[in-house]
Amino acid sequence: SYAGCGLPYYLSGQVSDFKDLMSTPAGVIRDVQFFKNVKNVKVEARTFAEEIDRENKVVKAVRLDTGERVEYPYDKLVLATGGKPQVPDIEGNDLEGVFKLRSILDGLEIKKWVDGSGEGTVAIIGAGLIGLEMAEAFIEKGHRVVLVELEEHILPKTLDVETALLLQRYLASRGVEIYTSTRVLSIAGDSSGMVQSVTTDRGEITVSGVLLAAGVRSENRLAREAGLQIGKHGGVAVNDRMETSDPDIYAGGDTVEVKHVISGEDAYLPMGSTANKQGRVIGDNICGTASTFPGVLGTMVMKILDFTVAKTGLTEAEARRAGFETVTALNPAPDRAHYYPGAKPIFLKGIADKKTGRLIGFQGIGPGDVAKRLDIAVTAISAGMGVKEIFNLDLGYAPPYSNALDNIINLASILENKIEGVGRGISPLAVREMMSNGDDLLLLDVRSPAEYNEMRIKDERVMLVPLGKLRSVLSELPRDKKMVAFCKTSLRGYEASTILKGGGVKDVAFMDGGLIMWPFEVDRSPLLEK
Amino acid sequence: SYAGCGLPYYLSGQVSDFKDLMSTPAGVIRDVQFFKNVKNVKVEARTFAEEIDRENKVVKAVRLDTGERVEYPYDKLVLATGGKPQVPDIEGNDLEGVFKLRSILDGLEIKKWVDGSGEGTVAIIGAGLIGLEMAEAFIEKGHRVVLVELEEHILPKTLDVETALLLQRYLASRGVEIYTSTRVLSIAGDSSGMVQSVTTDRGEITVSGVLLAAGVRSENRLAREAGLQIGKHGGVAVNDRMETSDPDIYAGGDTVEVKHVISGEDAYLPMGSTANKQGRVIGDNICGTASTFPGVLGTMVMKILDFTVAKTGLTEAEARRAGFETVTALNPAPDRAHYYPGAKPIFLKGIADKKTGRLIGFQGIGPGDVAKRLDIAVTAISAGMGVKEIFNLDLGYAPPYSNALDNIINLASILENKIEGVGRGISPLAVREMMSNGDDLLLLDVRSPAEYNEMRIKDERVMLVPLGKLRSVLSELPRDKKMVAFCKTSLRGYEASTILKGGGVKDVAFMDGGLIMWPFEVDRSPLLEK
Repeated sequence: SYAGCGLPYYLSGQVSDFKDLMSTPAGVIRDVQFFKNVKNVKVEARTFAEEIDRENKVVKAVRLDTGERVEYPYDKLVLATGGKPQVPDIEGNDLEGVFKLRSILDGLEIKKWVDGSGEGTVAIIGAGLIGLEMAEAFIEKGHRVVLVELEEHILPKTLDVETALLLQRYLASRGVEIYTSTRVLSIAGDSSGMVQSVTTDRGEITVSGVLLAAGVRSENRLAREAGLQIGKHGGVAVNDRMETSDPDIYAGGDTVEVKHVISGEDAYLPMGSTANKQGRVIGDNICGTASTFPGVLGTMVMKILDFTVAKTGLTEAEARRAGFETVTALNPAPDRAHYYPGAKPIFLKGIADKKTGRLIGFQGIGPGDVAKRLDIAVTAISAGMGVKEIFNLDLGYAPPYSNALDNIINLASILENKIEGVGRGISPLAVREMMSNGDDLLLLDVRSPAEYNEMRIKDERVMLVPLGKLRSVLSELPRDKKMVAFCKTSLRGYEASTILKGGGVKDVAFMDGGLIMWPFEVDRSPLLEK
Repeated sequence: SYAGCGLPYYLSGQVSDFKDLMSTPAGVIRDVQFFKNVKNVKVEARTFAEEIDRENKVVKAVRLDTGERVEYPYDKLVLATGGKPQVPDIEGNDLEGVFKLRSILDGLEIKKWVDGSGEGTVAIIGAGLIGLEMAEAFIEKGHRVVLVELEEHILPKTLDVETALLLQRYLASRGVEIYTSTRVLSIAGDSSGMVQSVTTDRGEITVSGVLLAAGVRSENRLAREAGLQIGKHGGVAVNDRMETSDPDIYAGGDTVEVKHVISGEDAYLPMGSTANKQGRVIGDNICGTASTFPGVLGTMVMKILDFTVAKTGLTEAEARRAGFETVTALNPAPDRAHYYPGAKPIFLKGIADKKTGRLIGFQGIGPGDVAKRLDIAVTAISAGMGVKEIFNLDLGYAPPYSNALDNIINLASILENKIEGVGRGISPLAVREMMSNGDDLLLLDVRSPAEYNEMRIKDERVMLVPLGKLRSVLSELPRDKKMVAFCKTSLRGYEASTILKGGGVKDVAFMDGGLIMWPFEVDRSPLLEK
C-alpha cells in the first residue's frame, strides 16, 4: 500500500525516502504485518488473481514465487485492481530510457535514471496531469523538458483555451518547451537500445529520456473476463452502491467509472480521493450499512513549479457540449489584501448556467492560493448554489488570507452582472478575433501612462485614456463606435465600460480578465519620451 | 477611505507605508479627487453630520474648519457611520500610553509610540480579535505582551474551551502572558501622566503601554437621535433590504446589526467583508434592483504569530444555548500529505446538529492551512449540508495541498460515525473530569513506546498498549472496565476503540483529538531505561 500520488515528489527529491510514501502519518509502514496486526486483514502478497469463477464464487490465483495454484472462496468480492498507463502504440516505446509512471517500481526506475543521468533533455509525451507533475520533477533535477501534446493546448481535459494559454506562457517563461497539436510518430534509439530521439509530425527532438504520459485506463481484465459490465470509457461499471453488474462483486478506485454529477454522464476520472471515499461506501455496504457514492465533479488540483492549477465541474467547452447556455467570467487579482506581504496573483475562470444562474464550472491558475478557491467552488457547485448565493457567502476575511470580498465572491459578482446584463464582458479570445477580422473598434486602455509605458497591446485601435480622466474626455469620444475597455485586471475596465454606457456609448464592453490574462503577445518596448 | 483591517500589520511593520492601506490595488489613493474623477461621487470631507431631519429629508451638518452650517437634502440616505471602540469605564483610561485602535489616526499614534518606545511591557485589555492581532504587532516589535481577559478563556465569543486552551498553550510558548477570568480595576500613571501600571483583581502589572481592546460597538448616535429603531445589541436595526425603520434611510457596515443565519438571532458582528456586501445590496436597492442581504454565519479568521485561528457558525456553547442537541468532533492532522515538505498540523473542531445531521459550527487553529477548511465549512453550512454530504465532497486532492481524504472530510466522517453510533468519542474535557472525579477507568495509550517515552499523561490509570499489539493482548484486558483509548491524534485511538468493542469490551470510547489536542499538562520527563 503506497501513495502513488506522491511519486512525482519522490522523483524530484522533495520527498527524500520512498518509505515515507508507504507509511501511516505515525510512521508505520503499511506492509503485510501492519494489515494483519492493526486491521486484522490478511494480505496475500505476490499472488496473481487469474480468474473469477462467479458461479462457484471463487477467485482462482497463482503464487508468483512457487507457481502454486490457490483458490479463494468469497461471499462478497471487492475489485480494486486500479489503473494502468495508456502506452501509445508507437515504434520505440520500449527502448531503454523510455518511462511510464504508475507503480512504485516505475518510480524507483525513473529515480535511478534521473539521479544518474546528469542533465539532459526529457520529452514528455502527453501534457495531462501526470505529464505536468513530472515536468516539475525533471526540471527540479536540472533537466530540460519538452512537452509534446496531441491536442491544441496543454491539460486539454482540464482547462479551456485561455487558461491553458496562460499556463503555457508561464511554463515557457520557466524554460519548458511546448509543442501542442503535435503527434509523436516514433521513438528511436542508439545501437545499445538507449533512447536518442523522438520523431513528431512537426520534426525531431533529440532526447536523453522520454516519459510516456498519455493517460491512464482501467485495469479491467479480471472483471471483463468474468463477464462483468464494462462502461464506455473502459472502466468497470458500478451503481451508486459500488456494486458491479454482479451484486456480490463490488469495485472501486481507478478500476471503475464514476458519474459526473453536473453532466450526468459516466466518466473515467481516476483520483486517490475518490478511491478513498468509494472504499468507505463499499465497506459500509458489505457490513450492512446502506451507503451510496453520489459521484464526482471532475475536480483536480496540481502544483507545477510555482503555479497551482485547478479545475472542478465542467469547462466552458464541456458545458457547451453538454447543452448548457454558458456565461463565463475571468477574475485576476491578488489572493489576499494587495498591501499584505506575500500577496500573489491568482487567475480564476467561472462558468455559470445562464438559465438557472448556477455555477457549473471553475478553473484557477497562478502562484497564489488557488486551492482554497477551488474547494469553495467544489462545495458551492455540489450544493447547486447560484452565483448570487456565492456572492453572499460569509467567507473568512482577514488581510493575510483574503480580500474583503474574496476572489471567488468577485468572480460570482462578475457572473451575476453578466447574467443580469449590468455588465457586458468579452473574452480576450473574442477581442483577438475581432482584431484579426479587422473590425472597426476602439480598444480603450484605461490604465495609467506609467503602466502603458511598461507594456501594451500594439494595435492602432488601442487608445490610452486613464480611468481618472475618462469622464472629462467623455464628450470627445465617438458614440457609435464599438468600444472595448480594459486595464490590467478588468476592474478599471469594467468601471470604464459603465461610465461609457452611462455616457451614451451604445456598443460597449470590458475585456474579461484585462491585460494580465491576455494570453497573446504584448509590446514591452520602451516608448519614446515626449 | 482606508483598510482598517490592515492597521495591525502597519503597526507591526509588515505593511511599511500606511498609504498602501488607502490605495486601490492599482496604487491610486482613494481620496476626494479619486471619488470625484472615478466614481463621480462628491465627498464632503471634514464635515460633521449633526442631525437628520427626517420630516424634511435633510441632513444638517457643520464644516469643521470654518464652523459653517450646511444642509444636504436627500431622496435616499445611507448611514455608514461605522463602529467605535468600547472603552472600559475605569480610572486612568485616558492616560498617555493608553491606546485604542479604530481609526487610522489611532493607528498613527500607536505606531509613533511603538517605534519610539523601545522594548517594554504592553497590557492588552480584552483578548478578542483585535486584541490578539495587536498582540502579534507588539511582539513583532519586541515588546512583552500581557493579555488580560474578563472571561474564562481568550477569544470567548469565537472559540470553545478546548480550542481556546490549545491556543493559550501556543501563545504561552511564544512568551505571551495570559490572565483570564481577570478584571481590570484601574490604570495608574506617573507624575507626568504617563501610564505605569494596571491594577486587576488578581494583582498589579507594571507596563509601559496599554491597549484597550474590549470590543467595538455601533456608532449609532445620528440614527438614534433621529428616532430610528436600534437593535438590542446597540446596532441600527435594518431589514434584509438594509432599510432602517425609515424606508428612505439605509444603513450598513459596522453601524448595523445583522441576522445570524444559524441561530436566527440578530447579532452585532462588524466585519469589513459584511460591510462590502451590504454596500452592494444598498446600491442595488437605491438604483431600483431589488436585492437582499441574507445574513452572516459569524465567520472570523485571524493570524497570530504562526497560528491561524478561525470560526464560523455556532460554537458548541452557542449551539447549546440556541437549543441544538450537539455532536462534536476534534480532528488534528497535517494540512497536506504528511510526507510532503511543509506539511503543518491543523486542529479542527466540528459541531453538528444531531437531529438533522447538519454541520452548524466549525473552529480551526494551528500553523497549517486552516483558512481553506474554514471557507469550505462556511460554504457547506450556508448550503445546509449534512456531514454525509460533506464527506462526499469532491475536494481538490494533490499531496502539496491536502490529504486524499481532506481534514474536513475526516472531520465530517468522525461526526457521522458519532451520530450513527459507529464510534464513540469523549472530549478531553470530559476525560479530565472523569480523572478528577476519581472514576475507575482504563486509559489505553496505543502509541509506540518511543512516542510514550517522549511525552505522556501521568496517571496510574494510563496503560501503554501499542495499537499493533492490541489484538494479541485483547484477551488479557478486563471486559467490564470503562475504557478510553487514545494516541497522538485519535486515529489509532479510534481503531483501538473499535478493536476493543469488537473484542467484547462494553464501555469503550476514544478520546477526541488525541494527545496533541489534550490541552492540559503532560509529562515530558525521560523514562528510566528498562
